Amino acid sequence: MRAVDLIRKKRDSGTHTQPEIDFLISSYTRGDIPDYQMAAWLMAAWLRGLNRAELSFLTHAMLHSGEVLDHSAIPGRKVDKHSTGGVGDKTSLILAPIVAAGGLTVPMISGRGLGHTGGTLDKLEAIPGFNTSLTLGEFRRVLSACGMGLIGQTVEIAPADKKIYALRDATATVENISLICASIMSKKLAEGIDALVLDVKTGSGAFMKREEDAVELAQVMVETGARMGKKIAALITDMNQPLGRMAGHSNEIMECLEVLNGGGPADLRELSVELSAWMFFLGEKTVDLQAGRELANAMISSGKAKIKFRQAIELQGGDPRVVDDPQRLPQARSLVVVPSPAAGFVTATDCENLGMALAILGGGREKKEDHIDHAVGLEFHRRIGDRVEKGQPLVTIHYNSGAKLEDARAIIAASYQIAAEPPQAPPPLIHRIIQPTP
Amino acid sequence: MRAVDLIRKKRDSGTHTQPEIDFLISSYTRGDIPDYQMAAWLMAAWLRGLNRAELSFLTHAMLHSGEVLDHSAIPGRKVDKHSTGGVGDKTSLILAPIVAAGGLTVPMISGRGLGHTGGTLDKLEAIPGFNTSLTLGEFRRVLSACGMGLIGQTVEIAPADKKIYALRDATATVENISLICASIMSKKLAEGIDALVLDVKTGSGAFMKREEDAVELAQVMVETGARMGKKIAALITDMNQPLGRMAGHSNEIMECLEVLNGGGPADLRELSVELSAWMFFLGEKTVDLQAGRELANAMISSGKAKIKFRQAIELQGGDPRVVDDPQRLPQARSLVVVPSPAAGFVTATDCENLGMALAILGGGREKKEDHIDHAVGLEFHRRIGDRVEKGQPLVTIHYNSGAKLEDARAIIAASYQIAAEPPQAPPPLIHRIIQPTP
Repeated sequence: MRAVDLIRKKRDSGTHTQPEIDFLISSYTRGDIPDYQMAAWLMAAWLRGLNRAELSFLTHAMLHSGEVLDHSAIPGRKVDKHSTGGVGDKTSLILAPIVAAGGLTVPMISGRGLGHTGGTLDKLEAIPGFNTSLTLGEFRRVLSACGMGLIGQTVEIAPADKKIYALRDATATVENISLICASIMSKKLAEGIDALVLDVKTGSGAFMKREEDAVELAQVMVETGARMGKKIAALITDMNQPLGRMAGHSNEIMECLEVLNGGGPADLRELSVELSAWMFFLGEKTVDLQAGRELANAMISSGKAKIKFRQAIELQGGDPRVVDDPQRLPQARSLVVVPSPAAGFVTATDCENLGMALAILGGGREKKEDHIDHAVGLEFHRRIGDRVEKGQPLVTIHYNSGAKLEDARAIIAASYQIAAEPPQAPPPLIHRIIQPTP
Repeated sequence: MRAVDLIRKKRDSGTHTQPEIDFLISSYTRGDIPDYQMAAWLMAAWLRGLNRAELSFLTHAMLHSGEVLDHSAIPGRKVDKHSTGGVGDKTSLILAPIVAAGGLTVPMISGRGLGHTGGTLDKLEAIPGFNTSLTLGEFRRVLSACGMGLIGQTVEIAPADKKIYALRDATATVENISLICASIMSKKLAEGIDALVLDVKTGSGAFMKREEDAVELAQVMVETGARMGKKIAALITDMNQPLGRMAGHSNEIMECLEVLNGGGPADLRELSVELSAWMFFLGEKTVDLQAGRELANAMISSGKAKIKFRQAIELQGGDPRVVDDPQRLPQARSLVVVPSPAAGFVTATDCENLGMALAILGGGREKKEDHIDHAVGLEFHRRIGDRVEKGQPLVTIHYNSGAKLEDARAIIAASYQIAAEPPQAPPPLIHRIIQPTP
């Protein structure tokens, strides 16, 4: 088999066999196929597409390019959630403790933020001492001890994905449903899970701005997971505005703690409970979703989820005192308010630009190498549909350096649409549920 | 400007500006854009296409990636011919002497054979001592001295093409009209010519098997040349069977000498005169084609073309005695005849396979690195439309090693279609003429 023939086949709209995909991925991972051949194949695949069978083969080959974790020594089912990312999207830090407290194991391998989106690993690192770079052995010990663990992708996990992702980034082959699906699913299935809930965001702050694209990605991922024997479902959820009231790393940890204490903003609380309920249901902890919701709420109201979070922080080297004393998290030196330029109703936000404003303040990365200021954050005072008077606060900026402050203020002020009439209806929190076709 | 943005633009069917193409080609030639980004762009360009303006920009950028020869010190017009290649396609070695003898300058930069096609440089190297690797200074001196010169692509000539061609070969992005056009035209225009005649082959032994593809390539090349201020025309000529009676390196030199001596097979003689006539006409040596044909025939009948060829061989270090004593060319040790398996009429040949049979006997290259046996050759005894009896010779094989002889015999025997009825009409020698739209 020769790489050039596989490139030609895909270029000419051919359909790859499993041995062909296996050859391509394993040879590339070993370095036997050079970057330029993989780049040509990726562009051909981007433009010609991969069918569902090819996508399963690709996911399978990428998954098995590295180690697939085996948690059979830990009793019970292993479940996880994956989100396609957005602004203020912090549910992982709430539902992992809820679901672990409820008796399932959550072996969560997460990513970092880039551009306007935040990343779970970065948020955890706002907690002094928290170590997201555990070895796989340490990860197993944490999971055994408390039922949850939160780490980054290691060299053992889906090395093909790591190599291919870097190449896609440089060759304009990122934005493709099949390649996104294979990348996400190969990493998630390497966690050794039985069930997976996908949170596919749609709206102005999402990767998939159009709902139909989010639905297509969700369908492809759900079908791929089901083909590989996993219990799986996807929630299409709203990212037309930030989730919750807080964005920024310390800020988001604080807001998660509010929810675990039984408070917090309604949208964040509701979505966290829904996602937890799906994890309980797909993880066969509860017979239906309603029982899952009740279990999730019980884990919050009993304080068991908060105790679980404290335990997990301690096991991963973090300062557990932040759970009861969030002021121990890095705090910004200064606050400034962005007032509403007019009276009226918030009808829309440019949520991606709100995320970018946070990033330029130091609370995100423009490039992978950028350092993150965990203390920087945004606090959102108005949601879509809310009434606001001229001069009332839209956003409070938590900042340390004034260097880019004016830029950020201008972006934020321009990100809110204020109109005389309220919108017909605020966007729903959960747009759709996608489950495998039976 | 960033390469990834240009890749994305072409991926999304965008149209490049001249500065964009210039950036891409010059950065890649310098090594500032890596192979994998150029590979992704090439695949996007292959699948999305380049319009005529982009193609001109690409040709211009590749042409100016290196040195464009300046022959202004040599009086008179400079003309060349380029063929897309085939089996037995040896006209360069006939028309260069004819046209140089007729008073124009022919600065010919040629290629090597690959697969089933032969290459002018390889044929010349059948002449003992002939040096095709002149420096540009030596090339100029030979041109000044005798009006013709025959060399290979040097490092100074279109280095972008050399680098891109190697990458296309490895990434299944060869067979694309625009990329082929830019590759050919950038090299040819670097010769510093005023006029160019294109011989675009079509048929079973051509790169462009279908006449419509040959016409499209010809139109694109003619338009690109015209945009760049060159006098240009293309002849779509037949490659449904070998040109002339001979294939193989010594064999073809001998057949060229036959034509220069006023003999040789009719098809080769006719095509050589036609191409020479176009070169005379476009080079403004004659007022029309008919005068060009007459001048070409006069250069043969007067012996001036043969004298010019002898002079050129001597100036490039070759043994000029081969012109009058062709037995000095490498000769194969053995001959064997492939007889017709049936009586009837030749209705078609698989001309590509005839070329491959020659290659596997050692008279061609399967890979670029392969050594060529100049003595090996094929002699074709029947053309399409000819009557043949069972057991009469179709082809005589000139060979040195018996190792692959049986394979070659089988391929040759299978390459002739013999039927009870003659074909309705043998293929025409010249299918069409393509000229720039005024």
